[in-house]
Amino acid sequence: MAALGIAMATVLTPVFSDAQLFTLTKEQMVSYTAQNPFERFADGRPKVPDALIERARGLSAEEVFAVLPGQGFRNQYADGFRVLHPEKKLVGRAFTVQFMPLRPDLDEVVNANAKAAGIPRMYNQVAIDMLQPGDVLVVDLFGQKDGGTIVGDNLFYYLMKGAKAAGLVVDGAVRDLDGISEMEMPAYFRAVHPSYLTNVIITGINVPIHIGNATVMPGDLVLGDSEGVYFIPPALVQQVVDNADVVHIHDEWTRKKFDEGKYKSAEIYGSPKDPELKKEYEEYLKKRLEEIRKKNPQ
Amino acid sequence: MAALGIAMATVLTPVFSDAQLFTLTKEQMVSYTAQNPFERFADGRPKVPDALIERARGLSAEEVFAVLPGQGFRNQYADGFRVLHPEKKLVGRAFTVQFMPLRPDLDEVVNANAKAAGIPRMYNQVAIDMLQPGDVLVVDLFGQKDGGTIVGDNLFYYLMKGAKAAGLVVDGAVRDLDGISEMEMPAYFRAVHPSYLTNVIITGINVPIHIGNATVMPGDLVLGDSEGVYFIPPALVQQVVDNADVVHIHDEWTRKKFDEGKYKSAEIYGSPKDPELKKEYEEYLKKRLEEIRKKNPQ
Amino acid sequence: MAALGIAMATVLTPVFSDAQLFTLTKEQMVSYTAQNPFERFADGRPKVPDALIERARGLSAEEVFAVLPGQGFRNQYADGFRVLHPEKKLVGRAFTVQFMPLRPDLDEVVNANAKAAGIPRMYNQVAIDMLQPGDVLVVDLFGQKDGGTIVGDNLFYYLMKGAKAAGLVVDGAVRDLDGISEMEMPAYFRAVHPSYLTNVIITGINVPIHIGNATVMPGDLVLGDSEGVYFIPPALVQQVVDNADVVHIHDEWTRKKFDEGKYKSAEIYGSPKDPELKKEYEEYLKKRLEEIRKKNPQ
Amino acid sequence: MAALGIAMATVLTPVFSDAQLFTLTKEQMVSYTAQNPFERFADGRPKVPDALIERARGLSAEEVFAVLPGQGFRNQYADGFRVLHPEKKLVGRAFTVQFMPLRPDLDEVVNANAKAAGIPRMYNQVAIDMLQPGDVLVVDLFGQKDGGTIVGDNLFYYLMKGAKAAGLVVDGAVRDLDGISEMEMPAYFRAVHPSYLTNVIITGINVPIHIGNATVMPGDLVLGDSEGVYFIPPALVQQVVDNADVVHIHDEWTRKKFDEGKYKSAEIYGSPKDPELKKEYEEYLKKRLEEIRKKNPQ
Amino acid sequence: MAALGIAMATVLTPVFSDAQLFTLTKEQMVSYTAQNPFERFADGRPKVPDALIERARGLSAEEVFAVLPGQGFRNQYADGFRVLHPEKKLVGRAFTVQFMPLRPDLDEVVNANAKAAGIPRMYNQVAIDMLQPGDVLVVDLFGQKDGGTIVGDNLFYYLMKGAKAAGLVVDGAVRDLDGISEMEMPAYFRAVHPSYLTNVIITGINVPIHIGNATVMPGDLVLGDSEGVYFIPPALVQQVVDNADVVHIHDEWTRKKFDEGKYKSAEIYGSPKDPELKKEYEEYLKKRLEEIRKKNPQ
Amino acid sequence: MAALGIAMATVLTPVFSDAQLFTLTKEQMVSYTAQNPFERFADGRPKVPDALIERARGLSAEEVFAVLPGQGFRNQYADGFRVLHPEKKLVGRAFTVQFMPLRPDLDEVVNANAKAAGIPRMYNQVAIDMLQPGDVLVVDLFGQKDGGTIVGDNLFYYLMKGAKAAGLVVDGAVRDLDGISEMEMPAYFRAVHPSYLTNVIITGINVPIHIGNATVMPGDLVLGDSEGVYFIPPALVQQVVDNADVVHIHDEWTRKKFDEGKYKSAEIYGSPKDPELKKEYEEYLKKRLEEIRKKNPQ
Repeated sequence: MAALGIAMATVLTPVFSDAQLFTLTKEQMVSYTAQNPFERFADGRPKVPDALIERARGLSAEEVFAVLPGQGFRNQYADGFRVLHPEKKLVGRAFTVQFMPLRPDLDEVVNANAKAAGIPRMYNQVAIDMLQPGDVLVVDLFGQKDGGTIVGDNLFYYLMKGAKAAGLVVDGAVRDLDGISEMEMPAYFRAVHPSYLTNVIITGINVPIHIGNATVMPGDLVLGDSEGVYFIPPALVQQVVDNADVVHIHDEWTRKKFDEGKYKSAEIYGSPKDPELKKEYEEYLKKRLEEIRKKNPQ
Repeated sequence: MAALGIAMATVLTPVFSDAQLFTLTKEQMVSYTAQNPFERFADGRPKVPDALIERARGLSAEEVFAVLPGQGFRNQYADGFRVLHPEKKLVGRAFTVQFMPLRPDLDEVVNANAKAAGIPRMYNQVAIDMLQPGDVLVVDLFGQKDGGTIVGDNLFYYLMKGAKAAGLVVDGAVRDLDGISEMEMPAYFRAVHPSYLTNVIITGINVPIHIGNATVMPGDLVLGDSEGVYFIPPALVQQVVDNADVVHIHDEWTRKKFDEGKYKSAEIYGSPKDPELKKEYEEYLKKRLEEIRKKNPQ
Repeated sequence: MAALGIAMATVLTPVFSDAQLFTLTKEQMVSYTAQNPFERFADGRPKVPDALIERARGLSAEEVFAVLPGQGFRNQYADGFRVLHPEKKLVGRAFTVQFMPLRPDLDEVVNANAKAAGIPRMYNQVAIDMLQPGDVLVVDLFGQKDGGTIVGDNLFYYLMKGAKAAGLVVDGAVRDLDGISEMEMPAYFRAVHPSYLTNVIITGINVPIHIGNATVMPGDLVLGDSEGVYFIPPALVQQVVDNADVVHIHDEWTRKKFDEGKYKSAEIYGSPKDPELKKEYEEYLKKRLEEIRKKNPQ
Repeated sequence: MAALGIAMATVLTPVFSDAQLFTLTKEQMVSYTAQNPFERFADGRPKVPDALIERARGLSAEEVFAVLPGQGFRNQYADGFRVLHPEKKLVGRAFTVQFMPLRPDLDEVVNANAKAAGIPRMYNQVAIDMLQPGDVLVVDLFGQKDGGTIVGDNLFYYLMKGAKAAGLVVDGAVRDLDGISEMEMPAYFRAVHPSYLTNVIITGINVPIHIGNATVMPGDLVLGDSEGVYFIPPALVQQVVDNADVVHIHDEWTRKKFDEGKYKSAEIYGSPKDPELKKEYEEYLKKRLEEIRKKNPQ
Repeated sequence: MAALGIAMATVLTPVFSDAQLFTLTKEQMVSYTAQNPFERFADGRPKVPDALIERARGLSAEEVFAVLPGQGFRNQYADGFRVLHPEKKLVGRAFTVQFMPLRPDLDEVVNANAKAAGIPRMYNQVAIDMLQPGDVLVVDLFGQKDGGTIVGDNLFYYLMKGAKAAGLVVDGAVRDLDGISEMEMPAYFRAVHPSYLTNVIITGINVPIHIGNATVMPGDLVLGDSEGVYFIPPALVQQVVDNADVVHIHDEWTRKKFDEGKYKSAEIYGSPKDPELKKEYEEYLKKRLEEIRKKNPQ
Repeated sequence: MAALGIAMATVLTPVFSDAQLFTLTKEQMVSYTAQNPFERFADGRPKVPDALIERARGLSAEEVFAVLPGQGFRNQYADGFRVLHPEKKLVGRAFTVQFMPLRPDLDEVVNANAKAAGIPRMYNQVAIDMLQPGDVLVVDLFGQKDGGTIVGDNLFYYLMKGAKAAGLVVDGAVRDLDGISEMEMPAYFRAVHPSYLTNVIITGINVPIHIGNATVMPGDLVLGDSEGVYFIPPALVQQVVDNADVVHIHDEWTRKKFDEGKYKSAEIYGSPKDPELKKEYEEYLKKRLEEIRKKNPQ
């Protein structure tokens, strides 16, 4: 299947390079994600390494927040979703799709271009079949509910089993909630509706999109927890993950101190007020960080 | 209890035939549900057969959507409810009740008429005590929260145990959420509030009502899943249920194919693109339909 | 035109007496508005006298509020409308129409009944052509915007010029806002949309309806000001109008006192605290009431 | 820790008596809660006895509603929260904190006063460290989401383990939802956000506040169930709890009767219509009340 | 100024052809608006002729609605705006701009590209200075209020006087409402806020965008009335304008008939029921159309 | 009247100093507004001089925004009001009143204290009668509509004529909209309702309150335009007013340049790009500032 996926991507590229509305050329992709420190996919999309993705599974939204705004990235978080499995983390690489309300004249051009590339019609499965394992399908359906259902349980099953996707984030809807709920893949959506996807048109695949107040670039690390979804630029992933180790250790130590029952909260948290305690904490931090780094060498 | 129910219905009829505001005569009921292909209750309300109700238990909102809009029924679905037991299907026959905001002058007439028929006061239990086993109480309380609580846990218990109702749909509220949550009966409501039902008046029993954007007729088959509620006209129930068999088989086959790992989603879904595959699917469909029809003769 | 109106009403009556869903028989109308102290139209609808309607033109929502809740009528006020001419009062007799979302099976029965009565199709103009001069068309379109446009500028023109209606209140929409804005007739609506009326069905003419949280009976005195709309039961109109005279005099006196610049607000308003002032006020009230009653004998 | 808590309270009092914006003097507290029939904390806050708190654990919102509005307390209920553990009751004594949007000039005064009392800065932990075991932290953060996060999982842990608080109600947000969800303490909040508490200022500790439409006094008994939160004035707690016994018995008897299958709902509920049944019920009530009172002497 | 405008456009083109994220090449523009029957601007954008724009000034939203959905264009209308001058029509050619929430990494690339083309920074005035006389600035600011203020009164003045723009439509905000209100240019916006444009980034100029549920292409004829805004594809403008003549004549005739006072609304409207009247209308229509066509030759 | 006002204030003070819930002592007022550079009223409230108030009449929200956030005051603006006279500026000194939902036990204490001070009952007129000429009544009624009507037309008349108030801002409602609309005084409110003020209780007079997201201190300069309301700390008024002169001159010069028709917007605005133009602007600014300062010496 991977082979077929690559073949299809190859087929698509020339179309899009003539019809820049729908995707970026590899050069554009590289240019717009220039800060990416990692490898890239064939189409130029940043590929955050699997090992970092694995470590990111321990992150919470708060640990991302601890880093991103301070680096000037204040618009990378979206919430207000229905979360399919609040107890499961969503972690993967962003594959973005942009829809707009259907316009017959635009639709005609889009489908003519698609046809010229051997795709009978430009629709949601064209995007789905381009996904790479570990991708999160991130879809801007401008909040559409009726007719804005990106997948039902069959395509959800395919996403999970066939495309080996890591999950789904859609500023729009899904259908077949009962069926979808039985599957393990994390999903974030605005609404559920029994209608199928209709009255919309794909206007971009792997282009910058916004989901609520967050701007998403193809290749961003997508992190969803029970609160919402963070889109982390590849250049900041390492820093976020490393800093989270410190946060975890700080939490460990803080609660241990609280468990001793000798302190008021203000004496310990945010940081120990007493110089002795402060030193104790710093030693603890250093020791634990070493343990973690040993277990988890980079 | 059934005997008493019938007796009460008998008592009520003459009242209502003088006071048509509140219900339909049997003739009116038959006329307004003329397309009903099934038996009827004594008051003319369509009675979708138990066997079909049983088969409908396997339906999802999507499978109803696959039939109704195509038949011109585009306003039969309501959502935006709090669903008491999202994992349980609601299936039963619609028993409708319409409320309006209390008006003392209208209230006086309504209660005078009720009294003349031996009912001390026209209130929610008059309607509840007219329910037949397998009915779903469908109530238009115009979205009222405070004072719009159709039942608390005692009447909910009675609905379930005494009236053998199949469930509750209310464009309004319930009370005693903790108590209600422990009972098995499916229920769909807009809100929860500790107040009791007040400042409203019954203006119709088993008349056409609307719940959100859906028009509900007495005797409609009510189908609720984790997404929302469909009100299916009796004349379309058989078609919906039969078509759902096809949908189920299509899902089975589609996922089997996806499990083989040889296909992109677009090659298989919505329908197989390859003529060979298409033929394979059609044979599978035929065989499985026969199996199902054998197991489930009509 | 009046002649035709009466003829049409005659034609309609027998239909509806067989099809009670859509209107009340004269007997029902009389029964449900039994407290009406005034004359009635041929169909039994209360007819608040023209002289009282004229006096009601001076009312504000606050002056109605001063009487109705105290008489147990707490649900007669609706607001949240776009008001076409906030500087113009709306005063007239309620002619009610109820719509529900379209259902083809119900639609078929409704239109068959209509046809049997010589009306080709049951639609908004059937209701509009039944209006009497001085009526306010009060329409429950359940808040529908797209497709819920009761009139555009042509029918609005007809309402005003042809039907000599006093105004329009719709829990729904209108179209042709530019055109409508140039006409003098007061109108209250939830929204404006370019679509025409569609996907709905008339389910009642001159039946009880609710507009927001207010229950409206045919024949209610409709009073709209820049804030919202009151639906006043005929039996309370005289009391509201008389009490408003007292309110007006009280306002006159209060402001005169404030103009003297000798008093704090608490000394004068709600009622004078000083016994001397209280006596002064009571004499003023008596004198002014006599003047008004002389000018405006009942 | 308790000792430290008291010491801190002592330190704070003189500050606040010079800076009445932030708390009440003991005299004021006693005056504003004059109807409290129970003991008080050192600062004058009413202390509903532990035994009553224990009995209150069986209450539902409906059982409080059955008493409070009838006593003139119509504004003691708030809902619309996200409930952390809907299946757990929240019961405890109200400790109130009021925030307002940050204003640097006011902030300067507040912190100068705090500093003079030996508190480096006035922030959420100053309030948290004043809590007594069994308190519910009730916080007016005026619905703020971003920056309105009263606690994350570390302070939540401290509230539960260190302060032995009974729970949290905040008209604002929390952070670290994943972490918080694993802890047992009940919590009611409007939203979740990854930001930390910022851009706000404490303007009152243990002063009257309002949460939605409910006015909360320090020392109120806070009762939360799956629907919402009631703030019960101490003077009414006994009456609420006693009346709830009657409600429970009434429910028991009603359902027993319904289980017999011989009655329509209207014959039994709200109260038995048949004099024989009524007598039967009254005897049952008397007997069961005696049993309960014996088990649970006051 | 025109000269400078052209010069600047020349400068920009090469930049954008390397950085296709922000605009379309001329070839793309022509391809995506292939159905345009009119001339084009130098950059390929359709140029609806001035004469048609003049005639479109008489259109209302309803007259556009009468044509577009029937041609399959169901998503060309947006409403819910604050309308600056409801009594003035907005008519002009769409110049589209798309913003997204600021992302520093993307911002860096955008500005580097801009700099390479001699533009110090990519911001709202770059777009404004590309406008042609008669253009309507149509801006997707994703509904942003705080920081989403596309112009204040100075730039609004420039748009009107310097750029000779026909108006402004923004799914976002403006500032300086008092100042703007004194100017004549029509404007449609979601909100007003005193902040300046901040925390956003331009991601497209003259690309397809959506405003609410309408997809807008560069060169669309923008028509705003007191209700909302229509974006009319150039290929349909002639048909809309011609059909509006028929609508106007139909309105004229209908009201004349209503003025005669002999007809019920249903007899005349939508179309005359009586064959004689129908013929009368058709002759009137023919005669009036000829008069109009004479006055307004194409 | 002034005499009486002072007498009443004298009477009130001792009450409140025993019952700090409702107001600040003079010492507290001075402490909490320590940065005030101006005179104070007898109760310590800052008194921005009349001359500055006069100059502030020329301000817009944008000109306040140009100064406040930069000084750390980011929460001083509230919008979302219905504005009675959008074309009139509101300028005056804040007199704050805080309400909470009624609680009988608290109400009893409040009224007992009031009675002890010779005030029969604590209600809205007690606050109104404490206003000083030029005050703006700023009321926190927590958004209440029904029952949250701070004034009707009589008290509005008194505010304007008797109390010589500068205007009204209420996070709540007013009544008698028709009557109020005829009066000149600016007013900002959330809603209009025919009910009178009820089910609430005064919990503070001239204490810090918040209106939406703005924290208001007694004595703040209140500035309302057609967009919303700014609450300006006295210490910043001079700077805001002075800076606005610069803004006005900048606007003058910018538009003059735009009128010349030789420049693109980016060449002139925000600041002139060409060094020559920049110099020209600076000289213009200097000259005009001198003219203004001469006309308007401080």
